[in-house]
Amino acid sequence: MTLTALCPGTFDPVTNGHLDVVRRAARLLDRIVVAVVENPAKEPLFATTERVEMLKEALSDVPGTEVDSFQGLLVDYARDKDVGLIVKGLRAVSDFEYEIQMAQMNRHLSEIETCFVATSPKWSYLSSSLVKEIARYGGDVSGLVPEQVVRKLKEKF
Amino acid sequence: MTLTALCPGTFDPVTNGHLDVVRRAARLLDRIVVAVVENPAKEPLFATTERVEMLKEALSDVPGTEVDSFQGLLVDYARDKDVGLIVKGLRAVSDFEYEIQMAQMNRHLSEIETCFVATSPKWSYLSSSLVKEIARYGGDVSGLVPEQVVRKLKEKF
Amino acid sequence: MTLTALCPGTFDPVTNGHLDVVRRAARLLDRIVVAVVENPAKEPLFATTERVEMLKEALSDVPGTEVDSFQGLLVDYARDKDVGLIVKGLRAVSDFEYEIQMAQMNRHLSEIETCFVATSPKWSYLSSSLVKEIARYGGDVSGLVPEQVVRKLKEKF
Amino acid sequence: MTLTALCPGTFDPVTNGHLDVVRRAARLLDRIVVAVVENPAKEPLFATTERVEMLKEALSDVPGTEVDSFQGLLVDYARDKDVGLIVKGLRAVSDFEYEIQMAQMNRHLSEIETCFVATSPKWSYLSSSLVKEIARYGGDVSGLVPEQVVRKLKEKF
Amino acid sequence: MTLTALCPGTFDPVTNGHLDVVRRAARLLDRIVVAVVENPAKEPLFATTERVEMLKEALSDVPGTEVDSFQGLLVDYARDKDVGLIVKGLRAVSDFEYEIQMAQMNRHLSEIETCFVATSPKWSYLSSSLVKEIARYGGDVSGLVPEQVVRKLKEKF
Amino acid sequence: MTLTALCPGTFDPVTNGHLDVVRRAARLLDRIVVAVVENPAKEPLFATTERVEMLKEALSDVPGTEVDSFQGLLVDYARDKDVGLIVKGLRAVSDFEYEIQMAQMNRHLSEIETCFVATSPKWSYLSSSLVKEIARYGGDVSGLVPEQVVRKLKEKF
Repeated sequence: MTLTALCPGTFDPVTNGHLDVVRRAARLLDRIVVAVVENPAKEPLFATTERVEMLKEALSDVPGTEVDSFQGLLVDYARDKDVGLIVKGLRAVSDFEYEIQMAQMNRHLSEIETCFVATSPKWSYLSSSLVKEIARYGGDVSGLVPEQVVRKLKEKF
Repeated sequence: MTLTALCPGTFDPVTNGHLDVVRRAARLLDRIVVAVVENPAKEPLFATTERVEMLKEALSDVPGTEVDSFQGLLVDYARDKDVGLIVKGLRAVSDFEYEIQMAQMNRHLSEIETCFVATSPKWSYLSSSLVKEIARYGGDVSGLVPEQVVRKLKEKF
Repeated sequence: MTLTALCPGTFDPVTNGHLDVVRRAARLLDRIVVAVVENPAKEPLFATTERVEMLKEALSDVPGTEVDSFQGLLVDYARDKDVGLIVKGLRAVSDFEYEIQMAQMNRHLSEIETCFVATSPKWSYLSSSLVKEIARYGGDVSGLVPEQVVRKLKEKF
Repeated sequence: MTLTALCPGTFDPVTNGHLDVVRRAARLLDRIVVAVVENPAKEPLFATTERVEMLKEALSDVPGTEVDSFQGLLVDYARDKDVGLIVKGLRAVSDFEYEIQMAQMNRHLSEIETCFVATSPKWSYLSSSLVKEIARYGGDVSGLVPEQVVRKLKEKF
Repeated sequence: MTLTALCPGTFDPVTNGHLDVVRRAARLLDRIVVAVVENPAKEPLFATTERVEMLKEALSDVPGTEVDSFQGLLVDYARDKDVGLIVKGLRAVSDFEYEIQMAQMNRHLSEIETCFVATSPKWSYLSSSLVKEIARYGGDVSGLVPEQVVRKLKEKF
Repeated sequence: MTLTALCPGTFDPVTNGHLDVVRRAARLLDRIVVAVVENPAKEPLFATTERVEMLKEALSDVPGTEVDSFQGLLVDYARDKDVGLIVKGLRAVSDFEYEIQMAQMNRHLSEIETCFVATSPKWSYLSSSLVKEIARYGGDVSGLVPEQVVRKLKEKF
């Protein structure tokens, strides 16, 4: 059986926590499509193309991964890509409740399954929004995001 | 890539919620070992062999599944079986906290990954212990467990 | 004793989950006032009159229910309507924490009681905001909201 | 409509938190049956008759309440008593998860509804087991349970 | 050992719940700096100087407390003030998850420790945003915030 | 101000997570009494004297700490020791709910304050009971508990 999974997210920007989940999933799966969600209602710090580029660079050494972006419903995108599995990282109870709700709605709308991987304890306190807040005030985010993302954050602020 | 997963549990007895998780996982994976945990410190209602038999009958029509039992550490058993993935169902926040703790401990002890699947909303309120409590008082558990398990519960009480 | 309850909400738009709670409560209570909250600080998709209309149509066959709308504090509105009980549906732990806080504040401000009803598992993953997001991208929301609301959502997007 | 509700619990012993929930519910309902659950698998501190007596004394001034006890399934007892509503107090998130599960199972087994009332903040940290632990070591539990229960606890330890 | 702690918050406006935490901490610590966070991305109801003034008046009788404000990262401000301890109140599970995340991030960025104090049950349902919402609609917030804050809220709305 | 704190626990056995909390607290406080709780109702793996010995050895290099044991109510013991502060580590939401309840009960019974410190993410999945379960089945617990405790666990099983 060839197993492809979708790993969707805002990735604004990608963190070492996201990369930990993708790397661990890549060891088990044949192919992972890491997909940047374009949400017109939100104002991301990084444009979609920037977010895709940062992911591509960060995952260039991880075989079986590709990076893409999409607008619209996740279940439609998954159908287009012919993918039957979504992989998500879980950090906290609040993540859990929202993600379970989304997983069950996505199963109502299609046959797609969602499987959750526990974030490594090392990254349990890490989020893109916290990284941006620290970088905005000149704090040190190296060790939390890849080096290239540290540089990109410095350019933005 | 051939992907085998372990689906461990007490299964005292197996419920339709357990079966839903195994059936859904079986559609995605090449092989699933459903493994009854023998815990000498607990007093199950059904003996290990009974629990294994009930699972075998309930999964006889699901290709790629096999049923087994083990004593001792899950990570040791997984190593013996050469399995790198554990699959677990998640119902509630309290499940989540305990299972995340176990998943992180198991990763500390070995390289094994745990992936979580959300229980179908239909079975969100279902547990083996609740089924036993209902059956003990003569309540109707059909629709919650397979028919053969309904019969076995009637024999016990 | 004649028991009237208030069932407040944004209902932007009403979902089958909301209707399940109201219908179940209506079997137990003499009268239920389903009240659309007008919050000037939020920008709903549907105007108050539209939300009231959708509720009226959806509840036209449920005896003992009436639909209304209000601005301002819930406790003031309840006093005006001479209602001593609020009924709310609970889906998840995060709902629970917020609603308990509101219930206790409302008891501090008045003598009004809040009673909570567990949402049916069938609708546990359903919310107005998720319905709007699906409809916005052309997804199928039939089965999640009444047919008239499906049509209204199609008109909006 | 005449509305009777069942208020089940172990009440080993009744606390001021339990009484707060019953008193508040009694203001809204025509009749409340406070029912002591006899669970042969547990070893309560107080016998069923003692628990019933303590409740009777504590609720002697609350019109519309009666005290009873039962063994077996709650849904069977409710059917015998012709009661369609269960009332329960909720303190914490962990209460919530268990009680929602029970409420949904009880609706699966019968047509009975469960409605939840938030415990007053004043009693949010109070439980029968904590009261017993304090009393066992000679701590002062007055103010947490009725005076007669304070005396009964002193007799036991 | 002389122990100084930082008690940061938005305090828009200060509530009796905040004051309870500061007063209780002040009994244990040599000095507490209560620090108003200026977040340019948010639009508070009260200007920073107003929030500082309200805190100063409310804490004028509490020895060992001083009131300040800051922009930027909390860990930078703590370093400037030579403070190694942050004190925060915890009300609910959702507070807990966010605050634990912040505490762990702050320890990653510096050597600063965060210690949490449980909010008194009496104020468990109280928040600045709820107070503002009640005051906006003319509700009575006396008993929830100091008298001077009641007056300030009346001036604003 | 001289600040002494009590750090109570079962410590059956002490883990690196416990030690992390005590070491971090010891940097801020003048004196910490680490107190083994003797609960006659529970059957610990290690006798009280063993648990005290393991703690003494593990904390021998941490100035300002002493190890003791007690039976009975924590608030009585704290009064005897003339200590006004309890320090506890928090790992998960379920810890939080129970510990908050205990903290509020202890404040009801006395004037004692409880302050919580977030467990380091590194030890978030660690508990004494999990350590015992792993050791029971011959798993490797080095790195999770001090070396002397590894040896003691080997002797027990």
